Amino acid sequence: MRLLLTIQYLGTRYGGWQLQNNAPSIQGVLEDALAQVFGTPLRVHGAGRTDAGVHARAQRAHVDVPFEIPPRGVMLGLNQLLPADVRITSVEGVPDDFHARFSARSKTYEYRIWNAEVADVFAAQTHAHVARLLDDRLMQEAAQSLAGTHDFAVFTVADPEVSSTTRTIERIDVVREGSVIRITVTADGFLRYMVRRIAGSLIEVGKGRADALSFDEARWTAPAKGLLLKDVGY
Amino acid sequence: MRLLLTIQYLGTRYGGWQLQNNAPSIQGVLEDALAQVFGTPLRVHGAGRTDAGVHARAQRAHVDVPFEIPPRGVMLGLNQLLPADVRITSVEGVPDDFHARFSARSKTYEYRIWNAEVADVFAAQTHAHVARLLDDRLMQEAAQSLAGTHDFAVFTVADPEVSSTTRTIERIDVVREGSVIRITVTADGFLRYMVRRIAGSLIEVGKGRADALSFDEARWTAPAKGLLLKDVGY
Repeated sequence: MRLLLTIQYLGTRYGGWQLQNNAPSIQGVLEDALAQVFGTPLRVHGAGRTDAGVHARAQRAHVDVPFEIPPRGVMLGLNQLLPADVRITSVEGVPDDFHARFSARSKTYEYRIWNAEVADVFAAQTHAHVARLLDDRLMQEAAQSLAGTHDFAVFTVADPEVSSTTRTIERIDVVREGSVIRITVTADGFLRYMVRRIAGSLIEVGKGRADALSFDEARWTAPAKGLLLKDVGY
Repeated sequence: MRLLLTIQYLGTRYGGWQLQNNAPSIQGVLEDALAQVFGTPLRVHGAGRTDAGVHARAQRAHVDVPFEIPPRGVMLGLNQLLPADVRITSVEGVPDDFHARFSARSKTYEYRIWNAEVADVFAAQTHAHVARLLDDRLMQEAAQSLAGTHDFAVFTVADPEVSSTTRTIERIDVVREGSVIRITVTADGFLRYMVRRIAGSLIEVGKGRADALSFDEARWTAPAKGLLLKDVGY
């Protein structure tokens, strides 16, 4: 039986989604909890990796479990076992040919900036702090040049596993609400560092550096803690 | 020169506002930072104590500093030195007879509940989690019996330093916004555990235990992490 899990996490104390030797990972704590619920080691397949310190509101992963079990029971059981900074918010049965990564149509990331002279203690783990007042309208205007299909090579790092650096951004929006600026990006897929480099460049645009966002060069990478995997579309 | 500081803190890793031997305190980190800015040990006087794990959006404290200095410079200097979970959000000069505690007319506390089956990782440090759906309208109705001047003895613990347990609640409101229930209480003063015992009793009311809120007995104390000192009125 194949289950699709929706996972929320505060990435602060993790080395990222993926299993690793030197740091705790979301995949690791999740596989540990699944092994306890099902009495056997199980492998989860995430919709995508998130880097160290990055958060998720709705990461997805599928797992094949060895017996039929009500999805709600799995959710309650896992949440009893998981640390408080990782929660399963839904579990549902899916067909055997469903794949959390390959079936994904789109992903939405949100980058959050606390834009006020003094940082906010309640936002410190989940928002980048920029003291200088940013012009969010300039940012929103500049961001529109990224919409559509482009080669985002400068917004990532060389990776032999990635055959193409072309992606399609369906939508990108920069919205201010009080001291918080949110950059929301929906695309058919993302490259490593892509949102953080877009956010880093847009922050420079917001400071008045009109040419900071360009397909020729991306010199700024905004900190991981401001990044949130908001949703995966199937 | 007497300065009034407005202090915001995430209380999670502190033993409370007040200096103590066995745990870091907000007063302690603040006095350490002030000693560095002014080159001499200084004592701060808080508007009131908050317990271990309790947060503040606008705690106040006054301090007498040994020389004239622009308040804004003090704020920027302190924020450079303080840990990321403590921020100074304003500094202003006040008359020498102003006292952060004795000049306070009122305080407002907020108690926050994450009321959904699954806890939220982003609210985990600042909200109590109650899985069972609470009836916030019953809570709001019951809470009104606390408004006005009453002896709140059952909502606190015996303390020889406290001469009277009578306090006046100017306003108390229970408001739901999605999965979050906020209990906001403004009073001329608060007793130790008072808001947490009110919140604990109101949670029971919300579960359908109509007689849980009473001046005869307060059997429930809600966890510290849901409590926030929201403001001090002068």
